[in-house]
Amino acid sequence: MKILVANLGSTSFKFRLFDMEDERVLARGGIERIGEASSPWRFHIGENEISGTEAVPDHAVAVRWTLERLTDAGSGCLRSADEVAAIGFKAVHGGRYSGVQRITADVLNAMEAMNAVAPAHNPPYIAAMRLLAERLPEIPLVAAFETGFHRTIPAAWSHYGIPSDWSERLGIRRWGFHGASHRYIAERTAQRSARDDLRVISCHLGGSSSLCAIRGGRSVATTMGMSPQTGLLHNNRVGDFDPFAIPLVMDATGMSLEEVLHALATQGGLLGISGVSGDMRDLHKAAESGNQQARLALDVFVADVRRHLGSMLTALGGVDWLVFTGGIGEHGHDLRQAICADLGELGWNIDPQKNMAADGETRIDDGSSSTQIWVIPTNEELVVARQTYRLLKE
Amino acid sequence: MKILVANLGSTSFKFRLFDMEDERVLARGGIERIGEASSPWRFHIGENEISGTEAVPDHAVAVRWTLERLTDAGSGCLRSADEVAAIGFKAVHGGRYSGVQRITADVLNAMEAMNAVAPAHNPPYIAAMRLLAERLPEIPLVAAFETGFHRTIPAAWSHYGIPSDWSERLGIRRWGFHGASHRYIAERTAQRSARDDLRVISCHLGGSSSLCAIRGGRSVATTMGMSPQTGLLHNNRVGDFDPFAIPLVMDATGMSLEEVLHALATQGGLLGISGVSGDMRDLHKAAESGNQQARLALDVFVADVRRHLGSMLTALGGVDWLVFTGGIGEHGHDLRQAICADLGELGWNIDPQKNMAADGETRIDDGSSSTQIWVIPTNEELVVARQTYRLLKE
Repeated sequence: MKILVANLGSTSFKFRLFDMEDERVLARGGIERIGEASSPWRFHIGENEISGTEAVPDHAVAVRWTLERLTDAGSGCLRSADEVAAIGFKAVHGGRYSGVQRITADVLNAMEAMNAVAPAHNPPYIAAMRLLAERLPEIPLVAAFETGFHRTIPAAWSHYGIPSDWSERLGIRRWGFHGASHRYIAERTAQRSARDDLRVISCHLGGSSSLCAIRGGRSVATTMGMSPQTGLLHNNRVGDFDPFAIPLVMDATGMSLEEVLHALATQGGLLGISGVSGDMRDLHKAAESGNQQARLALDVFVADVRRHLGSMLTALGGVDWLVFTGGIGEHGHDLRQAICADLGELGWNIDPQKNMAADGETRIDDGSSSTQIWVIPTNEELVVARQTYRLLKE
Repeated sequence: MKILVANLGSTSFKFRLFDMEDERVLARGGIERIGEASSPWRFHIGENEISGTEAVPDHAVAVRWTLERLTDAGSGCLRSADEVAAIGFKAVHGGRYSGVQRITADVLNAMEAMNAVAPAHNPPYIAAMRLLAERLPEIPLVAAFETGFHRTIPAAWSHYGIPSDWSERLGIRRWGFHGASHRYIAERTAQRSARDDLRVISCHLGGSSSLCAIRGGRSVATTMGMSPQTGLLHNNRVGDFDPFAIPLVMDATGMSLEEVLHALATQGGLLGISGVSGDMRDLHKAAESGNQQARLALDVFVADVRRHLGSMLTALGGVDWLVFTGGIGEHGHDLRQAICADLGELGWNIDPQKNMAADGETRIDDGSSSTQIWVIPTNEELVVARQTYRLLKE
């Protein structure tokens, strides 16, 4: 069975095509600047790389055009588009719909009700899914919600201190996100350690970041809450914030509540503090050339990770494996070093050489630790493909 | 020098009168239901206890009437009200004014600008201070702001992921509160351990709760943020919350932003989750007779303390003394036990017998811990008296 896993941005489409017989990636690629006159694309199909530009007005055209390339007589890897059993999406917030779901009008409506909660994520997915359901009705669409992995978090760790009616009727709770990534780390660490009782802190650090406390393969705590803006600060999203500061901002700036929330979701995080960029590479460069605000943004990021690492630690009562993943987690050796600095007393001793040299799946503690420290590249698409596959088989 | 320390509620006044020569409490007491036809009062002056009811229309009358009782020929402890060198207040949020301040129109205006941030705390203090400044101009008024002790928190731990202009111009940051209590614990643990480099986590648990990470007597992290509604959940205040959930509540209930924030500040916390009460005694009783929501509220409280204990631990990199204080911290042996359960791997081993029997200042770990665990009754009034005394002497 072949499954196409789609990753949507508001103007981008990335995919991987899996053969679920052996979980092999048959093809992968992406199209950028969808909706503009000329959309650049680049695909890897088998051993071949092809690229070019094309007028791709919307996500339905992007998918159809991708399927055409995948079935091209010469360069394709499929005989017919019918071979694609489903398209799986790493969807973000489905409100009362969590876990893995066939996309229906009901599911899309539930996602739409969360637009204000996940303003950067839900609207482009809903628009693209609606379009695909209409124009490619022959291909089943499956959403693997990012909240799904966190459904095992105990009530005591997921409740806010709010009127119970708001929790029960409005579904306001700590949902948590990055479920595909944390689930991959849970499965991979269990496999790699050959233990089914492992206590893991999974640190997904990237454009958007969250930590997850995992016991025996299950999420027991995470750092994101009702919305994917919470927890650690993100590239341009705020992280944890105090709602009681909002009236001050409104009074001082004349902004509406909607405008303040929009600013917190697009002008906050590393970008907001630094005033320079939300990209770590830019921030390192700026900090090295003496920009104090860029330095501060990096320092706040490290402090935020440490703050939340502690919470995950007390959620577990002790940790066997500490895992860094995501773009920054996998490649930011200086940030990993800063995050673990002076935490040897907690049993976390990074080996500076191993950390610096880490490439792919690498153990980076110095062996004296009670906790093993690892870099493990995540594979969210594989998780979505597996979840989609399982749903179809049921 | 004699200093009167005043603790104000919207309809209550509590005081302690200190002789700063030896820090002895000469008198203490309180007046309730100020503004009603009949206000009950109870004072301890020296060895004597006196009580009664009186028509006390406002806080200025309360103070004047208290001074009259303290100077009564028979039962008083002062020859004249002139002996009171100042009234010290444990004030909450002064915005750009932190630390210890003589009350001026400017300070009161700065406090007033924080009314929306500290709605339960600032308004009654401002009203009472204005009244006292007007009617008892001969007595200096001094505010020891609860934010003061936290001014040593590094920028990386106090910044939110917000546009830098909001931090700098509007003063939106993690200020932290309960400064008098955490400062008392910092001073007392340094004295008791005879160490000036001690790493302490101070757990002030009460109607309102916060933790503080203390290194060498200085606050390096705390759990409350811009407002005293944040961090751990409180008796009726929300604790940490996700601002992006606010539009959902407004849509579903028709409430305004102001109404939602008012609900979060008065109908949240233990009261909100349980629907029963914000008082631990009521919750224990309800939980014991099978009320599941009351049980959940207690469980969320314990989980919240554990979550934040971890953050304080990673802020310090290790902890020498873990201290419980505040009404619940001092008397809630079952909660202390639940909070420390299964954290032995972190070096925190409570001794169940010692914990159960703790009375006053008591060490309650089992001796096998790398961390000493203590119950230490706080003394916020003494801290305010000392701070007021020091300001007057300068």
